[in-house]
Amino acid sequence: MSGYFTNDDIVAMEKRRRTAFINSLSGFKSVSLIGTVAASGQSNLSIFSSVTHLGSNPALIGIVSRPGGRHSLQNILETGCFTINHIHPAVVKQAHQTSARYAPEVSEFDATGLTPEYHALLPAPYVSESVIKYGLSLVESHELKINGTTLVIGKVVEVFVPPACLLADGTIDLEAAATITSAGLDSYHTTSRITRLTYAKPNQLPQDMP
Amino acid sequence: MSGYFTNDDIVAMEKRRRTAFINSLSGFKSVSLIGTVAASGQSNLSIFSSVTHLGSNPALIGIVSRPGGRHSLQNILETGCFTINHIHPAVVKQAHQTSARYAPEVSEFDATGLTPEYHALLPAPYVSESVIKYGLSLVESHELKINGTTLVIGKVVEVFVPPACLLADGTIDLEAAATITSAGLDSYHTTSRITRLTYAKPNQLPQDMP
Repeated sequence: MSGYFTNDDIVAMEKRRRTAFINSLSGFKSVSLIGTVAASGQSNLSIFSSVTHLGSNPALIGIVSRPGGRHSLQNILETGCFTINHIHPAVVKQAHQTSARYAPEVSEFDATGLTPEYHALLPAPYVSESVIKYGLSLVESHELKINGTTLVIGKVVEVFVPPACLLADGTIDLEAAATITSAGLDSYHTTSRITRLTYAKPNQLPQDMP
Repeated sequence: MSGYFTNDDIVAMEKRRRTAFINSLSGFKSVSLIGTVAASGQSNLSIFSSVTHLGSNPALIGIVSRPGGRHSLQNILETGCFTINHIHPAVVKQAHQTSARYAPEVSEFDATGLTPEYHALLPAPYVSESVIKYGLSLVESHELKINGTTLVIGKVVEVFVPPACLLADGTIDLEAAATITSAGLDSYHTTSRITRLTYAKPNQLPQDMP
């Protein structure tokens, strides 16, 4: 198997092979469960591996929804809100299972056994089992011309994070929460910190933080 | 320290604390080095933690560029191309150091000691030290109304991946390449696979792949 691929090689790959290859090319992903509710009241829970920080002031997070995706995007556009819930090893199979194509009247909470949790500020459901979770209100969406994928941008409305996962400088210690990362279509990973590095300045190599 | 934060609490945080908090909220990130070249020929290398898979057919990857960011975005718009280079533990300090605000005439390759590598299809430089790297041509960009951040979308033109990092189904084994992930502003992590799970179907829990 060659180690060099042109776009022609990629286009010529069998579909499932190409999907596995390109999905793993971008590196480790921010994987979370997105909780939404339809105007009808039907709840939805779906695993997304495209959660992206877009700004801190205002606090903005993006997720990417594929065309022909399930009901998450439609629910977000209907109700103007969604929740993002971190995943830890004990719930990884249930989290992955939310990607199954259930009938429209089935809530992924019922189907997977994950527990919905509701809070006052938003109608969208949180995942009770998640250690870190946050709620967002829709502020903007962009449809990509080239493939119909939608970037959904939410502003952070509230955050739940255990005090034991907060470091002195405000950083959330994701390893203390056992938050996992994903790769490709189906691979899930724990992490081990190599280092935290000091703020980079010209003419001075970054130092390991004590 | 409380474990619950509303948007008002986030807005009221001291700036550096808020930046650390919100940057770590989204989970582990796809961190890579983005190589570009200006029309003048000046090369640029910059660490990005927002590399996102946007589609496999065509093969599309997005990166997010902050307003007032360095020269990467300007170079991509000028030359229509960029490279994405994975990071492994041996180069993490040099990779982090590319975020220092060097004078415009300084290439981050010279400043950090990382080695530029050129290939025929694109004028943008690759990072010789990176195990997995790929080149992209600009297809689309979207500026977020709310904060001026830009989503840059590239189509994959060529991929370099060692044959030893390719699994039988086309998946790239990121751990075989020692690709790292990042968290927050300054934290870098290796990973350990928990499992790969079979394709999810209703009424059947996913299985660990053999």
